[in-house]
Order: sequence, then C-alpha cells, then structure tokens
Amino acid sequence: MDVEEFRKRGYETIDRICKYYQELENYEVSSRVEPGYLKLLLPEKAPEEPEPWEAIQSDIETKIIPGSDPNFFALYPANSSFPSILAGMYSDMFNVIGFNWSSSPACTELEPIVLDWMAKLIGLDPKFYSNGKGGGVIQASASEATLVTLLAARHRILEEYKEKGANEEELRSISTRLVAYGSDQTHSCLKKAAKITNTLDRALPTDHNFSLRGVTVKQAIEKDIANGLIPFYVVGTIGTTDSAAIDKLTEIANAIKGTKIWLHVDAAYAGAALVCPEFKYLLKGINRADSFDFNMHKWLLANFECSCLWINNRYHLINALSVSQDILKNSASDSGLVIDYKDWEIPLGRRFRSLKVWFIVRTYGAKGLREHIRKMVRLTRQFHNKLLRYPNLFVISTPPKFALVNFHIKPNNIFTKSSNELTEIICDRLNESGKVLLSLTKMRGQSIIRFSPGSPLTTEKHVDSAFELLLNVAEGVIAYSLKN
Amino acid sequence: MDVEEFRKRGYETIDRICKYYQELENYEVSSRVEPGYLKLLLPEKAPEEPEPWEAIQSDIETKIIPGSDPNFFALYPANSSFPSILAGMYSDMFNVIGFNWSSSPACTELEPIVLDWMAKLIGLDPKFYSNGKGGGVIQASASEATLVTLLAARHRILEEYKEKGANEEELRSISTRLVAYGSDQTHSCLKKAAKITNTLDRALPTDHNFSLRGVTVKQAIEKDIANGLIPFYVVGTIGTTDSAAIDKLTEIANAIKGTKIWLHVDAAYAGAALVCPEFKYLLKGINRADSFDFNMHKWLLANFECSCLWINNRYHLINALSVSQDILKNSASDSGLVIDYKDWEIPLGRRFRSLKVWFIVRTYGAKGLREHIRKMVRLTRQFHNKLLRYPNLFVISTPPKFALVNFHIKPNNIFTKSSNELTEIICDRLNESGKVLLSLTKMRGQSIIRFSPGSPLTTEKHVDSAFELLLNVAEGVIAYSLKN
Repeated sequence: MDVEEFRKRGYETIDRICKYYQELENYEVSSRVEPGYLKLLLPEKAPEEPEPWEAIQSDIETKIIPGSDPNFFALYPANSSFPSILAGMYSDMFNVIGFNWSSSPACTELEPIVLDWMAKLIGLDPKFYSNGKGGGVIQASASEATLVTLLAARHRILEEYKEKGANEEELRSISTRLVAYGSDQTHSCLKKAAKITNTLDRALPTDHNFSLRGVTVKQAIEKDIANGLIPFYVVGTIGTTDSAAIDKLTEIANAIKGTKIWLHVDAAYAGAALVCPEFKYLLKGINRADSFDFNMHKWLLANFECSCLWINNRYHLINALSVSQDILKNSASDSGLVIDYKDWEIPLGRRFRSLKVWFIVRTYGAKGLREHIRKMVRLTRQFHNKLLRYPNLFVISTPPKFALVNFHIKPNNIFTKSSNELTEIICDRLNESGKVLLSLTKMRGQSIIRFSPGSPLTTEKHVDSAFELLLNVAEGVIAYSLKN
Repeated sequence: MDVEEFRKRGYETIDRICKYYQELENYEVSSRVEPGYLKLLLPEKAPEEPEPWEAIQSDIETKIIPGSDPNFFALYPANSSFPSILAGMYSDMFNVIGFNWSSSPACTELEPIVLDWMAKLIGLDPKFYSNGKGGGVIQASASEATLVTLLAARHRILEEYKEKGANEEELRSISTRLVAYGSDQTHSCLKKAAKITNTLDRALPTDHNFSLRGVTVKQAIEKDIANGLIPFYVVGTIGTTDSAAIDKLTEIANAIKGTKIWLHVDAAYAGAALVCPEFKYLLKGINRADSFDFNMHKWLLANFECSCLWINNRYHLINALSVSQDILKNSASDSGLVIDYKDWEIPLGRRFRSLKVWFIVRTYGAKGLREHIRKMVRLTRQFHNKLLRYPNLFVISTPPKFALVNFHIKPNNIFTKSSNELTEIICDRLNESGKVLLSLTKMRGQSIIRFSPGSPLTTEKHVDSAFELLLNVAEGVIAYSLKN
C-alpha cells in the first residue's frame, strides 16, 4: 500500500467511522453470534498473495461489526470520542516506543504535563504533581495501576527491613508474609496482583452501603499482625464495580496512620466525576492516599487504554520496577533530569497515550468535561425517577451513585417465581432483544440489574425507550408468573 | 466535535500522515531538544473553554513532531505500516474492551484465528495451535510475555507440590526458592519479571558467540538444586538485544529434559525472520519450548503494541491468572467453548489488536512479508560488505545476524585514544548529526556500534549514505587522534 492508496483508504475509513457513529442505533447492541462463528467464515491459513483492500474492508462489514451503542448501559461505560480517535491516528503516525526520554522527548514530556493538568482539574493534592516527589503516569489499565502500586508498596516496606539488616533471603521470606487488603467489593485486579506478586490478600466485609470501614481495616490488621503477618497495602475504592459504592477513605487513612501501610485509591470508574465541584467532597479522603488511579477510558471520553495513575513518591515505584540494561543507557537518563517511563510500568515500551488526554481536554475544555459527566448523572436520575414510579414492581437495590442505578424486581408472594428468578429472566430478555445491554450481578444473594449510561451519544430519548422496554418486558414476564 | 467536523479533521489527519511519510527524510532522526523543553511551551493548566482543532493541530507541528525515520538504525526497528494504521483506526472505532468473549465475540475470535495463521506461517509445531491444548495471545510487549509465561511456569511447578500435599503457606515459601534462568545477554525483562514475582533469577555466562549453552544451564541447575533451590523457568533467546545472538535451544531443551522446568523462547526481534524458509532451521529448538514469543511490532510491520505469544498448554496460563468476579460471569464463558483473554494477560481489558495482524498479513500476503524481511537482511549485508572493505579501520564485533551488524574501531597504537573511546566518540558524532541514529552498547568491555535497518522506507541509498557518513566521521575523528 503506497502513500496515495493509503490516502484513499484513509479517507474511506474516516467516512466509515462517521457512518458507524451515525448509524450506531441501528446495530444490535450485543452480538447474536454463536461461539466459533468467525472460524467458519475465515480461511485456515494466511494468504500467500496480497489481497486488495476492498476484500478486507468488506470483511469488516460482514464479519466483524460488533455492538457498541448509545443503548449500552451495562458494566461501566467505555467512552470513545472523535478527538481521541484523531489522537490515536497521530500516535500511530509517530509510532514512538517511549520507554525513556531519549527514545521520544515529546512522548515523555507531554505525559507529566497533561497529568498535572488533570491532577489540577480534579483537585488532587499538589503532592501528586510532577514537580515534587510525586507524579503521574498513564497505565494501560486500572489492573496495572493496582499491580505497580502494590509493587511500590512492597518495595517501601522491604526497604525498612533491609535497613534493619535483613538479607536477600530473609527479604524474600518476609515478602511472603505481606498482606494486602481490599473489600468484598474491590475489583478482582487486587486478587490478581496479589497472585502475581505472591503476596496475601484479604477481601474484608463491607457495611450496609457496601463501603469498607476504617474499623474493619484496623481489626484485620491487628489480627494479621498478631499472627506474624505484615500488612503493607490497602485499596480503597471510589465507585465499586457492582454498586459504585464509596469506601470510607478518611476512616481507612486514620486506621493505618503511623503504620507503613500504603493506601491506594482505585477510582477507575468514578474518578472522572471529580472534574465537577459537586463531587470534590470525595477528595478529602483521596488526598490522604499514597496513590490514586482513574480511567479516562471509562467515563471521560478517552479510547482504551488510558488509566491515569498518580503517586505521591515516585521513587518507590521506580525502585520497585527499574532494571538496568547497557543498551538503554544515555546521558539524558544519567542526568536524572528526565523521566524514563519504562521504570513506572510493567512493559518496557509504551504508546504515545498522552496525546489522547491532550486532545480531549483541549477539544472539550474543562467546561465540556463537566457537562459530559453531569449529563450522565442526569440521565441516571431520569431512569431512577421512572423506577420510583413503580414501587410495587421495582426495588432500588443500592442507592444510586454517580451514573449508576441498581434495581431488582420486588418479591411478591403472588408470583410463582422468586425476585432473583424474575430479575434474571427480565435482564436476559432485555439483552436478548438486541435493543439495550444491561449487566446482571449478585450482591449478598440478591440478583440485581445495573443501569449505567456513559456514551456521549446517549440522550433522554434513549433512556425513555430503555425504560419503556424494561416495563414491557417486566410486565410480560410477570404476567406469566402470576399464581392463578 | 460533531460527525462532520470529525470527517474534515479526519481527512486532514490522513493527509498529515501521508505528508509525514513523504517527508520523513527531511526530519532529523533524533530530537535536538533539551530536557524540559515542552514544559516551557505548554500552559500549566487545562483550558477552561474548548479550543479549536487548528490550535491543537498546529501544536503537533511545532511542539511534538519527533524523529522516526528511514535513517533509524538504532536498537531494533519499530515498524509501522499503512494497513496497521488503518487497523488502529478501526480498533478505535469499535473501541471494544475485549476482556471476554461476550464483551466482543469478533475481537475474541479473530485473535486465535490470525495467531494460528502466523503459527503456520512461521512453522511452529501444531502443539501451539488453538485447536488443541495450546493457543496464541497478543500481549502488549515481550516483557509481558516473559512475565505471564513465568507465572504459568510457577503455577505448573507449584501444582506439583500441591499434589504432594503442600499447603498454601508452604507453597508461598516454596515459591521464594524458585529460580529462573537466562543468560548475560537475555533481555532485562526477565530480571523485571523475577523482581515482580519475587522469584530468583540467574544471568548465566554465554559462549564466545554470546549464546547460552546447554551445559551451562545444566551446571547451574545442579548447583541450585544442591543448595535447596528449585529451578522452574529458563528463557532461551533467538536474537539477543546486543548482538542478535542465538541461544542453543536444542542443547538447553536436552539439559532440562525430564525436569519440570519451563522453556520460554524470546524471539522478540528475530522471530519475524521465521516467515522465510532460510531461517526455519531455528524451529528445531523453538518447537521444543513450552512458549514462544515474537513482536510483530518490531520487524513485521505492526504498529506498537503487537507481541505474539504462543503457549503449548494454555491451562497453566489461565490457572495462573484467572480470578473470578460475579459481574463478568456469562453463559458463553461458563460453557467453556470460548476464550476469555482476561485470563491470558496482566490487564483485564484489551484493544482489538488482532485487526493489525489481519490487515497486515492480507495486505502484504506471506510473499510480501518475506520480501520485507529479505530486504532488511540484504541491506545489512550491504553495510557489512562496506565495513569489510576497511579492515584497518573497522572490526566486525560479532558475526552479523538477521538484520544486525555490530562493529567497532580497530585498536591501533598510532592513535592517542583507545578503540572504545574512538567508537564512542564516532557514534555520538553520527547521532548528533541528526542524519542517522545508531545504538552504542558495551559487550565484554568492548564498546560497539550497532547497525540494524528495519523501516520499510529504508533503501540501498539510505544505507550507502549512512556508510559514507560513518566513513567521513570516523576518518575525521581519527585524524585528530593520531600520534604526531
């Protein structure tokens, strides 16, 4: 493909992207394919001769086009936006592998600048800015943010033991007694990080609001210490996966005060809301943390991957992850004046991800970002208000938070089926319709449907239609479940 | 930005990408900026109001455009290609977070299909195909491939101890006695993986060709076992970072035969060459491995990230990495008929990376891929032949392999400076010229300049000019270093 063909195909692809977003509502929100569908459609071997672009493009239309839609209310949103797509194109044009400053000064320098912008925009404590000991880094995902901060925390606590004279073998043994804490609502990435690093993890019980409390953390720590274990890391979540619950960060920070336990705040989904003043009350707890992470690729218009992590002392992270190699040595790195992001993350290389943040923040402005968040909160309230109008049919399972409302079918002994059975059937029927996509989860034995709008394309009209559909389906399912 | 503005800006971006590739030679191959340059050029805070696209675009031109060039001969190549850029655009259009089958059947199903294509194309043993116990997965980087295979290996060996009755606490303790092996030429990601997982690692000595030998591995294993340690993982490299050396895989496989030690083959750079029959002799050793990885984003035309990993038994990988969460449960996953890639990698989510492989292989055809590899090998030979014409000036430091040739300045007592000093000065001067970029490294005390072409835009003409420049610079530097 030469430059002129690329120009032609590039224009066509831009047109296709426009068409995709214009017609998104016509596509089914979830795919109706069966496992293995694609294997039946594609050859078993790579072609020997080059194929024309038309053949590839037509396969995208007929074999690939999946669901991704304004009627997607499942899980949490995975936003995309036009400036983010343009940034992706520039990132691919440059194709820098910005592992250290000298491999790409622009890629390396833009990142702390836009993460300082974001830190200021959401109101993080200046200890997280890049001009002091802190700093920000774009991880691929919140899972990696949890893993690398756990490693930084491990490094910090092992340094203590090292200073007290522990040798390498003792340190390895000590590290198997380290315990990380989260709650029964914490994202599974904590368990994964503990598994990877060979440390222990605890899923502590939450209160009636599904929030982790300081006293629970304190008791767990005391118990583990009494058993010869070493608490070193706790994750507090702002906006849990199931119910967007908010852990009591100030209580947790107080519970670990004076210890060497690292507090990481995972606000993967809800952190985006901090651009609005009405959510800044959450900062009080966040600013006591050692590290804070939120995904711009969830609710803040960035295409995947764009998980923004800040740390109040980058040296723990760098020391936990740096390994030297002669070929990567250079005068800029040796000077200590520059950032080498290879020592802030699991992989060595990285895409030019900061372009996305830069393009989005400039195209929307702080004002536009706030409008985006508020619109989703408003749409959620709209759906919530509709649910409230049918108190005999729907129960609000957990208090609505950010842009999430959870509900289930009210148990009633005139039904032949339980609330759980009805809730599950209704959610299945809704998703099978291909018109909306919602998530089903289970909290303390109760099956729950989650409604969480997030696409910039979603409007009042989509929420109204989604509710109408819910009502029809629910009434239909229930009609068949009435005792005679 | 609405759809029509996106169309306009999208066309402009396509035009900009075309211009970038047309004019690449005019840009300096490395940036001449000083650390901190960008902070001086950008505001300290995010804009409150939206900015017009023109402002953003103009900042790209004046503040970001970095070096990435047909005269880039440093490190190893980081290819990009037009079909890969188009695939990136489609990936951003779909913006699927393909963590499990149900979140995107197309994203999940295309990946094993194209990795089967690639496995067949490079000649991997069918044990690595997805239809048996094996399978392929696109990792972001070879570092992550090393990390996840080390975790799979750890899981496999700990399972043995578990079956023998070890409890959780004993298993954690056993795991601190696990030892991973590489050579003094293995990529630093092995050290990083060992650090992350809290296991031991050894950098074993290599022979005169910088290859790891079976006998060295065998002796190291025996010594560690005698000391109560547990060997569990060895990395063999095809194409080391410094000199593209090839470890003796068959010897290593024999050395660990009958043990529970996992053999991982890291062919991050050189694996691409396996598309050509003349390199398939390397498969004999590779096919005895438990896992094999190579980066299509290095030498096979894919934009970063695209590291192709195959494993001969995916269950070890999945068991090492899976953690369940109710909200992600679904009937497709429960059926066991589908792949959930979240359990094959560190992060939960992932981009639609397989589109790149699909577009590239179809656009070039197997034939076109072979031509690309052979062209780079030919250009390297061209440079090598020129070096050979000046035996009094240049020494070939290590035998040329794949598309890499290493050389240094011949020591001579008529010079006031040592070979190392001269080699370093000459490399610095070449890079400072802004006309070429080469890497300097040190092997067994000898400073070495590496020449490795890889960009599809590089031609004979660029190699000739690079050699002319080298000769001029070398002669100039040496003229000033003659004893009177």
